[in-house]
Amino acid sequence: MGHPSAGLRDGRCDARVADIGEFELIARLGRLLERRDTDPLQPPASGEIGIGDDAALWTPAAGQSEVLTTDALVDGVHFRISTTSWRDLGWKALAENVSDVAAMGARPCRAFVTLGLPKETRVADLEDLYRGMQDLATEYGFRIAGGDTVSSPITFVSVAVVGSVSRRELRRATGVTGDVLAVTGSLGASAGGLELLETGLTAPRSEDEATLIHAHRRPRPRVREALTIAEAGITCGMDLSDGLIGDSQRLGYASGVGVEIDWERIPVSPALERTFGRRARETAAAGGEDYELLVAGPNQSIKRANAALEAAGLAPLTIVGRLTLAEPGSVRVLDREGRELSIGGGSWQHFGSPER
Amino acid sequence: MGHPSAGLRDGRCDARVADIGEFELIARLGRLLERRDTDPLQPPASGEIGIGDDAALWTPAAGQSEVLTTDALVDGVHFRISTTSWRDLGWKALAENVSDVAAMGARPCRAFVTLGLPKETRVADLEDLYRGMQDLATEYGFRIAGGDTVSSPITFVSVAVVGSVSRRELRRATGVTGDVLAVTGSLGASAGGLELLETGLTAPRSEDEATLIHAHRRPRPRVREALTIAEAGITCGMDLSDGLIGDSQRLGYASGVGVEIDWERIPVSPALERTFGRRARETAAAGGEDYELLVAGPNQSIKRANAALEAAGLAPLTIVGRLTLAEPGSVRVLDREGRELSIGGGSWQHFGSPER
Repeated sequence: MGHPSAGLRDGRCDARVADIGEFELIARLGRLLERRDTDPLQPPASGEIGIGDDAALWTPAAGQSEVLTTDALVDGVHFRISTTSWRDLGWKALAENVSDVAAMGARPCRAFVTLGLPKETRVADLEDLYRGMQDLATEYGFRIAGGDTVSSPITFVSVAVVGSVSRRELRRATGVTGDVLAVTGSLGASAGGLELLETGLTAPRSEDEATLIHAHRRPRPRVREALTIAEAGITCGMDLSDGLIGDSQRLGYASGVGVEIDWERIPVSPALERTFGRRARETAAAGGEDYELLVAGPNQSIKRANAALEAAGLAPLTIVGRLTLAEPGSVRVLDREGRELSIGGGSWQHFGSPER
Repeated sequence: MGHPSAGLRDGRCDARVADIGEFELIARLGRLLERRDTDPLQPPASGEIGIGDDAALWTPAAGQSEVLTTDALVDGVHFRISTTSWRDLGWKALAENVSDVAAMGARPCRAFVTLGLPKETRVADLEDLYRGMQDLATEYGFRIAGGDTVSSPITFVSVAVVGSVSRRELRRATGVTGDVLAVTGSLGASAGGLELLETGLTAPRSEDEATLIHAHRRPRPRVREALTIAEAGITCGMDLSDGLIGDSQRLGYASGVGVEIDWERIPVSPALERTFGRRARETAAAGGEDYELLVAGPNQSIKRANAALEAAGLAPLTIVGRLTLAEPGSVRVLDREGRELSIGGGSWQHFGSPER
């Protein structure tokens, strides 16, 4: 909501998308992006065509692989526009895709945004959405290179992000039996933040609550970490969007291996632990939207990756389990003594539902 | 709807998206695409990663430029799922984007499809949607390389298509005063087909009506024509998605020139003329979704392009007007004597509304 002045300046504080023509809309959003693109950190790429032609155009460096990921967020399903700030929504819609690009060992280069918007959407809100996207683009050094707005009875944001791999990529399918499983960062903060927001919390009551809510609203994709560990020789990785358990199942399924997770080794977010107490570990294991990396590799590769992370001033990976000969995609969670735990009682298949 | 047998075979004729897990859904759609990808016309590109990892990955040829276009269709706005076949919807959602790729002088290479689906969507319908997309992909020689399904209260299809330019691209902004304006094919059939469908017509009553409805449901992007004319030296072009008048305005705006259109030279679809009589020309001038090409260039370039089209066994361009010194983006429509006509009475700005 943030910026009423942007609208007030031209006496159109309450202008709706339906009130202004397509040309004015494109011009406004273009100005918003251009102002930021002149940031010295982000020189406009020469020869590129961006917004305003039939398609965006660029010329990749020779020998470079390209990656592309797409995702969509729908009002009422993945967010509630009544309780989410447009600027945070812009950040998050792009962050999810940037995280997928990172999970391939790639650097994000350009983003394309298709918006479904009810006619009564405020232009100022739309500008805030673009500001949130540009916040992330500036910080991660990529461009918003194109997009489209379409009329829709509900708000949705559909994003495509293109990245480039200069050396070697991370795949889901290259894990083998005997590899250890490891993650970046700590888990569960985003799910904890969401749970707080869903209780109707309007303002955080502690620094920890603020940390959790911020983790949910402004996740930070692990681009530098991914490039560093791919360079160090890790070949198997993905990002954690649907929770450690559910995503471990996916990695195991793609690699044709079973997965064991050591319950006590899961790195629980400290703020989550202080706020949620006993329940924190389960939230860290099952909660989604961490956007940390889940990787697998021989023990010595993980060690090499940790040395490279340390050299780059980044936090090390935490080992959380291993890949096994068990049924592909099966996940067993073990206690300290190696006994299987039954977490949540249900089948983990649930976490792979098509709803997300 | 087309293929109940696909569902009957495993006793799940009426299975809904919410009934089957993500893995089964991905596996089913993957099988559908894989069966078609083994078509000898379409060998799977080696080294590519498609559906099932965090992102798709490919390695462009050295020196080749990439183009990317995105677009979305929303139920109730751009189609009505109650009256559209899922298979036609699949074709058309991709065709629009392939047309944008063609309009850059590029060859489509891979498509990415994000679907917003209500939980009660029938799996058999979803498979039909993929069949329609695959129909087009097979015919135009590209792959469906990735995508995502998300839960949504309304059905939408958001598509990204990546193409490659091996020599020179078509841009909107390279037209200059004195260029002539020309189009491929004939115009208005799709708009005529839509008008027939909107009267509630359930079956065409003549071959002409069938032609118009087919043009609306299964538009054929002008990929070969675009490659041929770009090769022949045309540098300014776009596709006609919003009608000749509206899109001429866009081309003029991008190139910083005015546009004059000769009313009598507009190539009206013969089937439209026979069906709509006197009204046909206005429908051809204003109606959208032709997916023909609109190009501009010096007279001799247009002649060279026509010779190249003829040599390739393709129909020639029709000259419909010229670029002028008038206000950028202004469009004047002239009669046989060069007098300005007022068509529809309104400002053409209308055609550039953000609703499409």
